[in-house]
Amino acid sequence: MEHLRIIKIGGNVIDHPELLDKFLRDFSKLKGAKILVHGGGKLANKLATDLGYEAKLVDGRRITDEKTLEIVTMVYAGLVNKNIVAKLQAQNCNALGLSGADGNAIKAEQRPVKEIDYGFVGDIPDNAVNVNLLGKLLSEEFVPVFSAITHDGTGQLLNTNADTIASVLAVALSKIYRCSLIYCFEKKGVLEDVNNENSVIKEIKSSDFVTLQQRGIISDGMIPKIYNSFEAINKGVEEVLIGASDDLTLLETDTFGTRLVK
Amino acid sequence: MEHLRIIKIGGNVIDHPELLDKFLRDFSKLKGAKILVHGGGKLANKLATDLGYEAKLVDGRRITDEKTLEIVTMVYAGLVNKNIVAKLQAQNCNALGLSGADGNAIKAEQRPVKEIDYGFVGDIPDNAVNVNLLGKLLSEEFVPVFSAITHDGTGQLLNTNADTIASVLAVALSKIYRCSLIYCFEKKGVLEDVNNENSVIKEIKSSDFVTLQQRGIISDGMIPKIYNSFEAINKGVEEVLIGASDDLTLLETDTFGTRLVK
Repeated sequence: MEHLRIIKIGGNVIDHPELLDKFLRDFSKLKGAKILVHGGGKLANKLATDLGYEAKLVDGRRITDEKTLEIVTMVYAGLVNKNIVAKLQAQNCNALGLSGADGNAIKAEQRPVKEIDYGFVGDIPDNAVNVNLLGKLLSEEFVPVFSAITHDGTGQLLNTNADTIASVLAVALSKIYRCSLIYCFEKKGVLEDVNNENSVIKEIKSSDFVTLQQRGIISDGMIPKIYNSFEAINKGVEEVLIGASDDLTLLETDTFGTRLVK
Repeated sequence: MEHLRIIKIGGNVIDHPELLDKFLRDFSKLKGAKILVHGGGKLANKLATDLGYEAKLVDGRRITDEKTLEIVTMVYAGLVNKNIVAKLQAQNCNALGLSGADGNAIKAEQRPVKEIDYGFVGDIPDNAVNVNLLGKLLSEEFVPVFSAITHDGTGQLLNTNADTIASVLAVALSKIYRCSLIYCFEKKGVLEDVNNENSVIKEIKSSDFVTLQQRGIISDGMIPKIYNSFEAINKGVEEVLIGASDDLTLLETDTFGTRLVK
């Protein structure tokens, strides 16, 4: 099977034009099949503030009401997505911007109301990815660029976590590609010593996960990220890499960040 | 050659949710290859107003400065485009939202500064449409949905007239399809008597154009629209139809609006 990279960038890249430009140049040069998934960074919050609209939080969790959905659709699927696509095209990378609604790429489900009504937030069930569509686009050498907006198939757009989109794409496309799922963030990888940027752990096996948690090396926000990464690996993804957006060129020499494997 | 319809809707549809929903249901049912092109209606003005941002006008013409470009990119390529795509998908129409940047579908040029600097406005030169891309998407039975945002190939997005986008698509795709270019507006067609909605002129030949202008039947805003339509016909488009979005189903019985032909 051919190799496919699914690369997710977050707010630390989106919010810094120079970082984003460098990342997109490096991304363009990567050989082989690839997909980019992006969040929206602080731009959606900024737009909400500029509109005098206060984000609703319940128990510290953000609620996507109708107005918030409009804002994230404008920022993620419009402003951020189209600027990234135009910049990639300028680097001769044949980018094609997608939301989950486009070509029915990803059909999500509105999160059911339990203790909290999250509003227009989409969770992605199994078999939600249109593998046929993405297989066609990739075989035509398009580079899909996903914003974190999906739909439910009845005309409703949904705000969806970008990490989750990257992960479900990788799992689904593992049927037709050897998939590397790559999370870019501000650090060079999972650090042995959080105060030492050069203490990147090269490889973590799923059997190491519990030990690393007990030793406090994987903690807080990294726990769900790495837990979900091993989930993806268990579902067929070949490897998950976690490292700095600035280091993207290291992918070519297999020296990028921390590698999670079975 | 196969038949292709390129249908443009404007503000009168976008600004009225019920009209838009009906239009999208009717559009979904149209058989054969089709492309939808949409403007943004008053939503961009509303967002600008909500942000306390005043549109710049020079000699009565709107200037697309950086902030305005951000606003139209968010509204046209984000909010409006993705909602239309999601609603079409709900009707089993395999819509795929595109800006000119996506897949390098349409490469425009920033309008040169003469008396007025229009800012980030794109004009579309000959051979700017990626016929290969659209041919592939149409042959896979996708329904491209274009927002009126293009790019210049160097990473710059550009605000572009939606009527122009519809027209250049029809001209370019006439190489591989028999193209009908369809402009939807609030009236049932070009009216013999402007006060009588039922006085639709069924057909106008290019040789009738001067006479109709002299008789005052084609006047004001309709003159450039019809002039440009005959230009498109001279460049290979089979017919241009002008009529009401509400009457879309009449296309199937060849009784929609006013037909312009060579």
